[in-house]
Amino acid sequence: MSKKWVYFLGKSKAEGGAGMKEILGGKGANLAEMINIGIPVPPGFTISTEVCKTFYDLGKRYPEELKDQVEAAMKMLEKETGKRLGDLVNPLLVSVRSGAAISMPGMMDTILNLGLNDRTVEALAKGTGNARFAYDSYRRFMQMFGDVVLTIPHEDFEKELEAVKAQKGVKQDTDLNADDLKEVVKRYKAVYQKNGKEFPQDPQQQLWASIGAVIQSWMNERAITYRRLNNVQEGSLLGTAVNIVSMVYGNMGERSGTGVAFTRNPSNGEKRYYGEYLKDAQGEDVVAGIRTPLQLDQMANEWPEVYAQLTRTFDILEKHYKDIQDVEFTIENQKLYMLQTRNAKRTAAAAVKIAVDMVEEGVIDKKTALKRVTPEQIENLLHPTFDLKEKKQARVLTVALPASPGAACGRAVFEAKVAEQWAKKGEKVILVRVETSPEDIGGMAAAQGILTARGGMTSHAAVVARGMGEPAVVGAEELEVEYEKKCFVVNGTRVNEGDWLSLDGTTGEVLLGKVRTIKPEGLSGPLAKLLGWADEVRKLGIRTNADIPRDATVAREFGAEGIGLSRTEHMFFEADRLPIVRRMIVGRTLKDRQKALDELEPIQKKDFYGIFKAMHDLPVTIRLIDPPLHEFLPQDHESQLKAAQELNITLEELKMTVEELHEFNPMLGHRGVRLTVTYPEIAVMQTRAIISAAIDLKKEGVVTKPEIMVPLVGMKEELKMLHDIIKREADELIKAAGVDLPYLIGTMIEVPRGALTADEIAEYAEFFSFGTNDLTQMTYGFSRDDAGKFIKDYLERGILAFDPFKRIDRDGVGQLIRMATQKGRSVRPNLKIGICGEHGGEPNSIEFCHIVGMNYVSCSPYRVPVARLAAAHAALANG
Amino acid sequence: MSKKWVYFLGKSKAEGGAGMKEILGGKGANLAEMINIGIPVPPGFTISTEVCKTFYDLGKRYPEELKDQVEAAMKMLEKETGKRLGDLVNPLLVSVRSGAAISMPGMMDTILNLGLNDRTVEALAKGTGNARFAYDSYRRFMQMFGDVVLTIPHEDFEKELEAVKAQKGVKQDTDLNADDLKEVVKRYKAVYQKNGKEFPQDPQQQLWASIGAVIQSWMNERAITYRRLNNVQEGSLLGTAVNIVSMVYGNMGERSGTGVAFTRNPSNGEKRYYGEYLKDAQGEDVVAGIRTPLQLDQMANEWPEVYAQLTRTFDILEKHYKDIQDVEFTIENQKLYMLQTRNAKRTAAAAVKIAVDMVEEGVIDKKTALKRVTPEQIENLLHPTFDLKEKKQARVLTVALPASPGAACGRAVFEAKVAEQWAKKGEKVILVRVETSPEDIGGMAAAQGILTARGGMTSHAAVVARGMGEPAVVGAEELEVEYEKKCFVVNGTRVNEGDWLSLDGTTGEVLLGKVRTIKPEGLSGPLAKLLGWADEVRKLGIRTNADIPRDATVAREFGAEGIGLSRTEHMFFEADRLPIVRRMIVGRTLKDRQKALDELEPIQKKDFYGIFKAMHDLPVTIRLIDPPLHEFLPQDHESQLKAAQELNITLEELKMTVEELHEFNPMLGHRGVRLTVTYPEIAVMQTRAIISAAIDLKKEGVVTKPEIMVPLVGMKEELKMLHDIIKREADELIKAAGVDLPYLIGTMIEVPRGALTADEIAEYAEFFSFGTNDLTQMTYGFSRDDAGKFIKDYLERGILAFDPFKRIDRDGVGQLIRMATQKGRSVRPNLKIGICGEHGGEPNSIEFCHIVGMNYVSCSPYRVPVARLAAAHAALANG
Repeated sequence: MSKKWVYFLGKSKAEGGAGMKEILGGKGANLAEMINIGIPVPPGFTISTEVCKTFYDLGKRYPEELKDQVEAAMKMLEKETGKRLGDLVNPLLVSVRSGAAISMPGMMDTILNLGLNDRTVEALAKGTGNARFAYDSYRRFMQMFGDVVLTIPHEDFEKELEAVKAQKGVKQDTDLNADDLKEVVKRYKAVYQKNGKEFPQDPQQQLWASIGAVIQSWMNERAITYRRLNNVQEGSLLGTAVNIVSMVYGNMGERSGTGVAFTRNPSNGEKRYYGEYLKDAQGEDVVAGIRTPLQLDQMANEWPEVYAQLTRTFDILEKHYKDIQDVEFTIENQKLYMLQTRNAKRTAAAAVKIAVDMVEEGVIDKKTALKRVTPEQIENLLHPTFDLKEKKQARVLTVALPASPGAACGRAVFEAKVAEQWAKKGEKVILVRVETSPEDIGGMAAAQGILTARGGMTSHAAVVARGMGEPAVVGAEELEVEYEKKCFVVNGTRVNEGDWLSLDGTTGEVLLGKVRTIKPEGLSGPLAKLLGWADEVRKLGIRTNADIPRDATVAREFGAEGIGLSRTEHMFFEADRLPIVRRMIVGRTLKDRQKALDELEPIQKKDFYGIFKAMHDLPVTIRLIDPPLHEFLPQDHESQLKAAQELNITLEELKMTVEELHEFNPMLGHRGVRLTVTYPEIAVMQTRAIISAAIDLKKEGVVTKPEIMVPLVGMKEELKMLHDIIKREADELIKAAGVDLPYLIGTMIEVPRGALTADEIAEYAEFFSFGTNDLTQMTYGFSRDDAGKFIKDYLERGILAFDPFKRIDRDGVGQLIRMATQKGRSVRPNLKIGICGEHGGEPNSIEFCHIVGMNYVSCSPYRVPVARLAAAHAALANG
Repeated sequence: MSKKWVYFLGKSKAEGGAGMKEILGGKGANLAEMINIGIPVPPGFTISTEVCKTFYDLGKRYPEELKDQVEAAMKMLEKETGKRLGDLVNPLLVSVRSGAAISMPGMMDTILNLGLNDRTVEALAKGTGNARFAYDSYRRFMQMFGDVVLTIPHEDFEKELEAVKAQKGVKQDTDLNADDLKEVVKRYKAVYQKNGKEFPQDPQQQLWASIGAVIQSWMNERAITYRRLNNVQEGSLLGTAVNIVSMVYGNMGERSGTGVAFTRNPSNGEKRYYGEYLKDAQGEDVVAGIRTPLQLDQMANEWPEVYAQLTRTFDILEKHYKDIQDVEFTIENQKLYMLQTRNAKRTAAAAVKIAVDMVEEGVIDKKTALKRVTPEQIENLLHPTFDLKEKKQARVLTVALPASPGAACGRAVFEAKVAEQWAKKGEKVILVRVETSPEDIGGMAAAQGILTARGGMTSHAAVVARGMGEPAVVGAEELEVEYEKKCFVVNGTRVNEGDWLSLDGTTGEVLLGKVRTIKPEGLSGPLAKLLGWADEVRKLGIRTNADIPRDATVAREFGAEGIGLSRTEHMFFEADRLPIVRRMIVGRTLKDRQKALDELEPIQKKDFYGIFKAMHDLPVTIRLIDPPLHEFLPQDHESQLKAAQELNITLEELKMTVEELHEFNPMLGHRGVRLTVTYPEIAVMQTRAIISAAIDLKKEGVVTKPEIMVPLVGMKEELKMLHDIIKREADELIKAAGVDLPYLIGTMIEVPRGALTADEIAEYAEFFSFGTNDLTQMTYGFSRDDAGKFIKDYLERGILAFDPFKRIDRDGVGQLIRMATQKGRSVRPNLKIGICGEHGGEPNSIEFCHIVGMNYVSCSPYRVPVARLAAAHAALANG
């Protein structure tokens, strides 16, 4: 038996169904499905996606049997409809439409009314008694065929249509009568000639040219680009199907029409039919905006019977597909035909509401509901967004990296201090910097949003902004920032201090002027319900990265089950501590340093007290000091002058310390555990602050679960040294207080060598937390502060399939994570393992964490809900 | 049966032998061995090292059976000698000496004449008829026992001896008569008293106190420090043995004496007896320099029979031990006794000559000869050294990292340009910098040696100096360099421009003033022979890292079998190219860049032509451009001003480019393959230059084997892109030339991800070369430019057992190397694998490369001979 290339869509029975999208395409499969469940669909047939694949495999030749199979199908179609292609009494007209397994803009879309020519148009006019309709159909066909198959410029046709309308003094296409349309047809023929093309009168020729155009459009540039941009792996789809369906006519007059509809509101999820239609119209007229379409509600009054049939059909489809449907329909002389149905695209809010409603309606179960919402949609619901109408009118200055989601609007300022001052006066500001540094934290917090000219998704600005839940756009390399002049220039536009800017941290757009923002709904109603279901399903714990009680509280409200990373050094930058920290750094002797540390201890203790209290009953992982000390010292002359005075040392002495601490590659320098190996007294102070805060709370009856984490460990000996110090100090305090206070000592795994020797390291670690930012940097040898420039090239050239700072690289970095997990647990089976890098809030990475068997992921507060759903998805997808 | 703690040394038969060093210590084992081969040794016994171990294991108590076993041995000794300890007619005297399995200064050494007291001294006088001898022996014992066992200051005794000599108006100890010595003994007793100690008259008490002192000296500070400094693992040795041997007397008058000798010259290896002796002397007198000793040759005339017996003994010992011996002997009334023999310490030159001579004498085989010489000794033979006498007199300013071996002397200059100018005028200079940068290359080459205040063993200065075979000391952090004042201050001493400095790159010493240097012998005579044998044994190929024909030629003479790394960018820094390279960098368009590249191509081609020619018939690996582009641009204002003029652009434009190229972590930045992904035109130019140079040579009949190497690859896709470019360009040129020119395309494995995904990368790589510098940096997360500071702490605290930039870290970095080797060969079984990092010349690392099955190591030219031997050692040790 020869291979089956063509699938027939009969009036009451079709070959195939919704399960065969791969071979029939989405459109064809759903047409077949609708026919088989008794919904009125005009008959036709589908040329399978395998034809498209074979066509390219054979070097652009059709499989041999195709011609015969298409002819046979056409015969059957003629029999079903009682019409014949090219017949001069009862001509069969068909539509030709593409349709791949997934919806894919960019391919050839639709040709209607195929089969018309100078003679069949007369037959149609005669047969329907409606010459206007016949010529309207003919001119439409000529226009579409010319445009789509022969690539004659669309405008050439439009111009002629407009010319005739102008001649007749009418505005609407529908105001043209049959003679006018004949004139249009005549002019269209001239257009073909002018373009050196010929309109084929032979319907067979029309048919094969159209089939060819559909199949060739699979490989046109737009389609290829679309697939690349949407990460559709080349080869994962066979190709496009070609759907050939007998025409029904919405343009047969006032009792006819065509429309599109949703079975629920795709914008807010409300359970209410929603759609538009046009009378006496065909195909794209509704969405093309030629005339203002009517709301679906109106049909209930005007055409109650058709309306009842239509909404009944909606209910059948929704029940059948168990999801909101997006449909196209045509009404030919009050007879309803469905031309397409598919699961509707919807907003994030609608997705959540519909999923939850459908569970409550008993249509789907909870797991299905969870799968219906993407983690990205959750993200959208938690951040402010722009008023879309206002946004459309604003000028986009540039598009850069969407580092921290949400919409922000404020006046441009160029210094952190200025941001703080203006904010105090009640001004909303956007902080614009070439890059940010830890000194800028105050200003960053005071700003509505952050814009930097440099840096990647894990640059300082990005990390801090995400932590604060504040919108940020980073790495806007087109910006030329001039601090002295307090302005930046981008693509010729100059933005001065005080000018209004709007940032879309979700898309990376930088907009000129003031755009209204809309507050997020937050965690309530259906979203809270959905996330509750996610919690039932997921295996991973969800923690948060939080340095201050406020963030901890936010995260807890969002469902965080603990803190996975609290960066103690962020506390060091606060105004009341920085001078003390600096005194510690410039201290030449242990005694000098100890004096400063003694002053810091009660302050740090207070910090920890606050965080522990906010997180009562939940574990809190506190990381000992991590950044290189030079980050705490002022780098420019003026600040140094001031700091030297404060520190009561000479400028020269301060400069010498700065110089001594200078590093060529600070990322690989004297930081993390290396600092506490050199200055164990810092670890002593921090341990004492942590443990005594916990003891105080314990005495107040508050349960705390401190987990002390040593960063940047690459060797067992490093951790052993710190482990011994921490244990000695902690046990001494606990013993003296006479309380029972369990605590854990663990380490970050963020240096490749740490992963490679994780079995040795696990001897001294009760938990591992993967610092995937640094691990990615070192595994690739990419500095996150510098790689922005060439990662762009890499993505464009397809060398990187994704940015490994955003999504865990499973092949390389992931290999180390797997290795470390296995090695660590081989020594300590109950080793607690988590992740606290930026990847901890990214869905694909969360799935990987689930697969390797981590205990938890930790992410910034505003990503906690996202992570809850992503973890549920991971559990559903991977058992 | 109870455990054996004591081993007897009889007159003609001893328990144990040379194979039992672990238990008997080196001294005891060799005494037993000598007895058993018929050499005259005074009888005695050895308390085993296990006693020492048990002593400490039991909390400083002897094993129970020890006392009985010592008493039994003493009984036997009394029987053999016919004397008795404490006997008032014929008293037995013994020596007590320590002796661990390896020679170890720092422990208690020797007590002689034990058994003497106020009464036995008289018996000795009477028995020998020599009161002077008896009292000389007594005062010696009192002095040694007081000093060593009771820690009475040595000087207290010396003072009294000197006082008596002064009283008598004599100079030599031997000029004192019996009565004088009685006076000395009297005064010594007073010394004991003054120090609150008592001299024990009971010989048993004397014996056990001395045994205790020896065993306790195992744990004294000096011994522990010695073991730590010499990397003797705590626990790898059981402890020290105690050798108790009956006395023979060199101090019995003019027919007696004592001496030390070597069976060959330990300084130059000449086959000639070599030693010194003193008449009427005991123990340490010869080396203590109390009187000027006699040369061994004199004995041939004076005591011909004894001399004949002694040299016969030398021959027997050398033949027996198959190595040059270092012996101690005593002649008592013309009777010869051997007191010790051991393999002699020798200079590097002697080691080589003796090993080769002994093979030719048929004493040892070639493999044994190879094991007798360490790779470090080879290194010493290839570099200039200081005249040791002059060096001793020079003041050491500081000691820092010995970055490139050899001795250098010159006048201090502080700028590379100045170094070049002075060198042109014939001045010898030492270039002193805080750190060096690629711009300094000219000045570095012109200097005799390089001194930097910053940087580690793999800093720019260190790498370049080793490549040039030029001595360098780096990371001298005590230096405060002041460029403006053209001076540096170190520990209070100021060194100005023009002052003489001497650098020992082998030890890291920085010396003030001019110290004469001695030229190395180079590769000839015995060394060449030995290395030839090494070549027969080793499995690893030895290549060199060379960027210019001169280096290639040197390396080839040293035995290099190819070039494993030629850094093309070093060529870019030459004066005639730098402006062109800069034009390429500031070029805003592909066209601008292409213009500069077109100019560079013929110059690069000439470079490659020279290297290929020097290395004809041997493979040459050429690495495509590696460093970040900012390294080629001037960084200070003045140079920028000049460069801008040359480039015909504004200073502002140049500064902008510099700013754009600035990176926070250049090590992890836009370099290596990332550059050629962004600017493929550079790879095109370099490939064309390489291949056309090879084609030209081919046409001249010279065989070249180019291997084109892509640096910093972490992803298969990167290498695929470059592979395709290189192949396209190379094949096009080869085809056009109509020649047959095989070439290879390969990659460096220096990014952890490259190792982790080596199986994928091997699809496009015909060879791997491990760049262990970068791989170590990224695996540890240590910047080689910055880690100097804390690696010192790490080594001191024992967190690092060694500097991983010097020796491959087998556990971490080595794990990646193993993995990459296995994964690579799993895909491409004939994958050629080598190493071109600094580790390629380090013996322990070379052994690792042998073990993992690499094909070759590549190192700087001056390390090639070292590597040849180290590779032979690796093959011998690991089969």
